[in-house]
Amino acid sequence: MMQNWLNALILSLAFASTSAVAQSTGDLGLVVERADGSLLVIDQSERASIGRITGLGDLSHASLVYSPDERFAYVFGRDGGLTKVDILEQAIVGRVIQAGNAIGGAISDDGRYVAVSNYEPGGVRVFDAETMELVVDIPTGSKTVGLVDVPGTKFVFTLWDKGETWIADLSDAEPEITKITGMGSNPYDALVTSDGRTYIAGLFGEDHLTALDLWQDNPEPMPILDGYSAGREGLPVYKMPHLEGWALAGTDFVLPAVGQHEVLWVDARSLTQTGRTETHGQPIFAMARPDGRQVWVNFAHPLNDTIQVIDSLSKEVIHQFTPGPGVLHMEFTPRGHEVWLSVRDANKIMVYDTQTFEKLREINALSPSGIFFTNRAHKTGL
Amino acid sequence: MMQNWLNALILSLAFASTSAVAQSTGDLGLVVERADGSLLVIDQSERASIGRITGLGDLSHASLVYSPDERFAYVFGRDGGLTKVDILEQAIVGRVIQAGNAIGGAISDDGRYVAVSNYEPGGVRVFDAETMELVVDIPTGSKTVGLVDVPGTKFVFTLWDKGETWIADLSDAEPEITKITGMGSNPYDALVTSDGRTYIAGLFGEDHLTALDLWQDNPEPMPILDGYSAGREGLPVYKMPHLEGWALAGTDFVLPAVGQHEVLWVDARSLTQTGRTETHGQPIFAMARPDGRQVWVNFAHPLNDTIQVIDSLSKEVIHQFTPGPGVLHMEFTPRGHEVWLSVRDANKIMVYDTQTFEKLREINALSPSGIFFTNRAHKTGL
Repeated sequence: MMQNWLNALILSLAFASTSAVAQSTGDLGLVVERADGSLLVIDQSERASIGRITGLGDLSHASLVYSPDERFAYVFGRDGGLTKVDILEQAIVGRVIQAGNAIGGAISDDGRYVAVSNYEPGGVRVFDAETMELVVDIPTGSKTVGLVDVPGTKFVFTLWDKGETWIADLSDAEPEITKITGMGSNPYDALVTSDGRTYIAGLFGEDHLTALDLWQDNPEPMPILDGYSAGREGLPVYKMPHLEGWALAGTDFVLPAVGQHEVLWVDARSLTQTGRTETHGQPIFAMARPDGRQVWVNFAHPLNDTIQVIDSLSKEVIHQFTPGPGVLHMEFTPRGHEVWLSVRDANKIMVYDTQTFEKLREINALSPSGIFFTNRAHKTGL
Repeated sequence: MMQNWLNALILSLAFASTSAVAQSTGDLGLVVERADGSLLVIDQSERASIGRITGLGDLSHASLVYSPDERFAYVFGRDGGLTKVDILEQAIVGRVIQAGNAIGGAISDDGRYVAVSNYEPGGVRVFDAETMELVVDIPTGSKTVGLVDVPGTKFVFTLWDKGETWIADLSDAEPEITKITGMGSNPYDALVTSDGRTYIAGLFGEDHLTALDLWQDNPEPMPILDGYSAGREGLPVYKMPHLEGWALAGTDFVLPAVGQHEVLWVDARSLTQTGRTETHGQPIFAMARPDGRQVWVNFAHPLNDTIQVIDSLSKEVIHQFTPGPGVLHMEFTPRGHEVWLSVRDANKIMVYDTQTFEKLREINALSPSGIFFTNRAHKTGL
């Protein structure tokens, strides 16, 4: 009798535990709650928050990347903190303060290495993604910007003070560094196309951008989009869209113009400007829906309560609305049927249907900023 | 004392159960074991099989798609069986015999609907992805081919007997069908580009392919790649690469030429032929690595023990090797650092590094054919 009772208890415990933990990770995500140093765990299918992870320190301008299995996130804090969180257990499983002031990071294509780009003391530090031990320290004698992963266990990054781009190949035991000089004066950010081929640096000190074809054996700096900023002293030409990589909308890329109320269209093949669209304000992010058919734009303060949607074919604004105060970030579901917006000063995540523009849900969050869905694990160059 | 012992037991059980079940799904996959009607569950990170799901019926030419959370797979059997499996529980959770003879299927962008394309009795049937209930029956009076999902809860498919392409919009309660006539004689398969914009049908009865721009309000059939088959009677011109969607390699798409020992390069923008590469045999699949830098090709019997790797920049074969007898399928890890091959007659899955071409692992499998990684959940047009 006792035995039967015990068996029943054991079975019911095992079942309860299984139910609680069996959780697929393909539709999860994390939202940065900057003011509280926490991450909200979200479920796309449920359109809900399912937990919160606290204790991540200073998360201003924080970004994160995911392990290939979509279980672990590596969070890059502005304070130099690198934190590994387990999205299944909703817990911090590793944390190092690896520098004094950091600006983003990347994970290698094989998931073995996490690299962090540092302002102070500069350089790039590479950590073992499993143990969080430092494996390679790459001092550069400069602030580093525009750190991305590319195929072949490689990272690419750029030196603000020196105008150089470095490629670090970590596929062998000894890292191999290739240095490309002559990128231009004061590169302030960079990005790589989603195929990992074209790396483009924005320059604060010159009136063009500089591109590299990473498929070449010896990539040569190529000036592109020359002369746009004529008459606009002291401003960089184009804003690099942070966090997102560069999304293709039809045959063109879209870039926010700096200091102007417009977005610029750039032919993805020739890298020449093909058009511009007037916008409601100074654009911050111009993000293409995954299929490229629409571009969603948010704006700088004080116009940051508004979103405009541009049709990629006509290049015209087809929809404008006001989600609320402080729309900081947008993240599309992997196949683009929904977009999730961080509306910071409303303390809400808002979910919209991208076909009907209908609001589907509001989710409470604490001053939300960046939204990161787990499908980023499968993308190059974030 | 008894209480303590029981508590310890309960804790240890709960822990053991948690460990066994806590499983992220971003790096999993399924391999079709055709002869046995089973699916092998594989883990990319562990480079291992972690289970087997049996009882799926006739799996010849079977394919599958994943739910957005990367938990459930919908398996399309040639015998008309539609089976839903839970990759976490490694079990069948639903199965219907929905037709007499079927040829593939698709899942809508929002994950709500699974559609199946039927030879016998023809037409397309759409099922609720959660309950597996039939929700829409679309008779066509024809065999249907080339069924794909596109954004907006839409499916696109083509009628072999009528030379028509139909677009089924399921975003509202009442499905809306748009019929496009004049696609050409006997379309035998079709595909859509990964942005869901360009739909291309291969024709058995004519010497060209037909493209549709689905971004237009009224898509018009456009003949492309005209006249290639001159002198090759009774053969279609190009083979549609099944299962994969069309992968971009640099600025070109790659297609296996039918009845020839070559692959063809097609400019992705103009859809004109730009080159050809001689190959070891009649290519079956020409698959681009996710970054597009390499194209891996396998071949028809009796040369199906061999793989060639083509560099997308030079369009030259840079590597050739012989994995073993009956190389049926290739699947790249999401960011392309590895490729997994089904070597049917060796009863093995073989895992290769795509940079060094080194073999990393062999995994036992029963006459393996199609390999499907869960990141397909996040892709359009499969």
